[in-house]
Amino acid sequence: MSAFVHERAVRFADVDAAGILYFPRFFDYCHEAMEAFFAGLDGGYVGLVSGRRIGLPAVHASADFKAPLRWGDVARIAVTALEIGNSSARLRYVLSRASDGVESAVVQHVVVATSLDTMTKQPLPDDVRAALTRHRA
Amino acid sequence: MSAFVHERAVRFADVDAAGILYFPRFFDYCHEAMEAFFAGLDGGYVGLVSGRRIGLPAVHASADFKAPLRWGDVARIAVTALEIGNSSARLRYVLSRASDGVESAVVQHVVVATSLDTMTKQPLPDDVRAALTRHRA
Amino acid sequence: MSAFVHERAVRFADVDAAGILYFPRFFDYCHEAMEAFFAGLDGGYVGLVSGRRIGLPAVHASADFKAPLRWGDVARIAVTALEIGNSSARLRYVLSRASDGVESAVVQHVVVATSLDTMTKQPLPDDVRAALTRHRA
Amino acid sequence: MSAFVHERAVRFADVDAAGILYFPRFFDYCHEAMEAFFAGLDGGYVGLVSGRRIGLPAVHASADFKAPLRWGDVARIAVTALEIGNSSARLRYVLSRASDGVESAVVQHVVVATSLDTMTKQPLPDDVRAALTRHRA
Repeated sequence: MSAFVHERAVRFADVDAAGILYFPRFFDYCHEAMEAFFAGLDGGYVGLVSGRRIGLPAVHASADFKAPLRWGDVARIAVTALEIGNSSARLRYVLSRASDGVESAVVQHVVVATSLDTMTKQPLPDDVRAALTRHRA
Repeated sequence: MSAFVHERAVRFADVDAAGILYFPRFFDYCHEAMEAFFAGLDGGYVGLVSGRRIGLPAVHASADFKAPLRWGDVARIAVTALEIGNSSARLRYVLSRASDGVESAVVQHVVVATSLDTMTKQPLPDDVRAALTRHRA
Repeated sequence: MSAFVHERAVRFADVDAAGILYFPRFFDYCHEAMEAFFAGLDGGYVGLVSGRRIGLPAVHASADFKAPLRWGDVARIAVTALEIGNSSARLRYVLSRASDGVESAVVQHVVVATSLDTMTKQPLPDDVRAALTRHRA
Repeated sequence: MSAFVHERAVRFADVDAAGILYFPRFFDYCHEAMEAFFAGLDGGYVGLVSGRRIGLPAVHASADFKAPLRWGDVARIAVTALEIGNSSARLRYVLSRASDGVESAVVQHVVVATSLDTMTKQPLPDDVRAALTRHRA
């Protein structure tokens, strides 16, 4: 199975006063990659959340940071599903610098399918499960 | 030893399209708490980074999310130092809702003292070490 | 009538790659000042928006930038109401550096009371009008 | 002369607690469009700022907001240069919803070429002037 790949440039205002990508933004980049990962759902990720009122809130997130990213770098984000459960899934994101492939960070992110009306967990919808399975590690 | 406590309101634009605090912003709140944690250094955290050119970039960050925060909630963030090494330290942040004490997330954050000129690690400065020791778990 | 004053520090990640406060964040700071301005409403600004479902979306915003703000500066934001209409109000924010009073920016912001259910304008609620009148320029 | 066009999706975390694109982010979107506008410079906008140490800080910004943007909308941003002076330029950005062309906002943004080492103004570099001239209104 192959990873889903999303690329995005580090923007002018994404760096911090130390001149490197502010570490919470690595998680934001991963969320953006996840939005792209689920873009193929009917109605996209927007349809899942706003239409069907099913969210994928994080119950866990972690990152190991290996090399900084700077303004002007393009982040290449390779997404795979490490585990797919009944209601939850563990995603892995490997972020590297597109220009030379240097690995910048590895992120793990556990999401739980949740009804946004009741805020209780529910089984992963079939199309969400299918998208995850397509990119299982 | 007691935790260092920082409080901040969840702002109007901090929530996401699901109506809850966007999960990368938990890490941003923790960084804000760390800036406050080190405010007592001579020149504050600004003096450390901009003056002495020593940063504390993250090499690891992780979070377990337990209950969402919403706009209007005040996040209470209790910071302790779990481990203090030669160059690095592991900080723990317990985030709870100030109004009723419900625990929202527990974050761990490993930082490494780094020369911003050479981007190589260096020993923790004495005043940084003293601040950490004051709030050791 | 006196201005309403809100202060906040420029944070580590608020600057851009040029090392100064990223200009869109001036507007974000003003919105934060407006949230504080209306904190005295019953239920605060949160109650207005989430409870009464009345928003104050911007129909106009402008800024003149005079001197940059940097990480470590504290922004002092003085808020007054320049005009108070039936449904709308024009707010002015003067941002200065708290340490020495140097003026950094002057922002104007026209908001319109809007039902968030119908997205149509409505008269300014009495308590919103009263708060504005208290700080009329 | 034709406008330079940049498109970008409104992201999950770009909306505020009222469910619409947070108004300061309109300016952020415009800055992103400006970064793309100058991508054709030798070394891109990054090369201008980080390499040649010439920034384009805003001295004025204004926006008229006409219709909200929501998560899932794609913002189409058409950029033209209204005025090109010796050191400064006035840019106009017309933001519309890509799906149906509804106009959302019109932004004006005056930038001044500035040495980031001395923080004093300087003439617009020739390649910056050429890019502006190519898209003069």
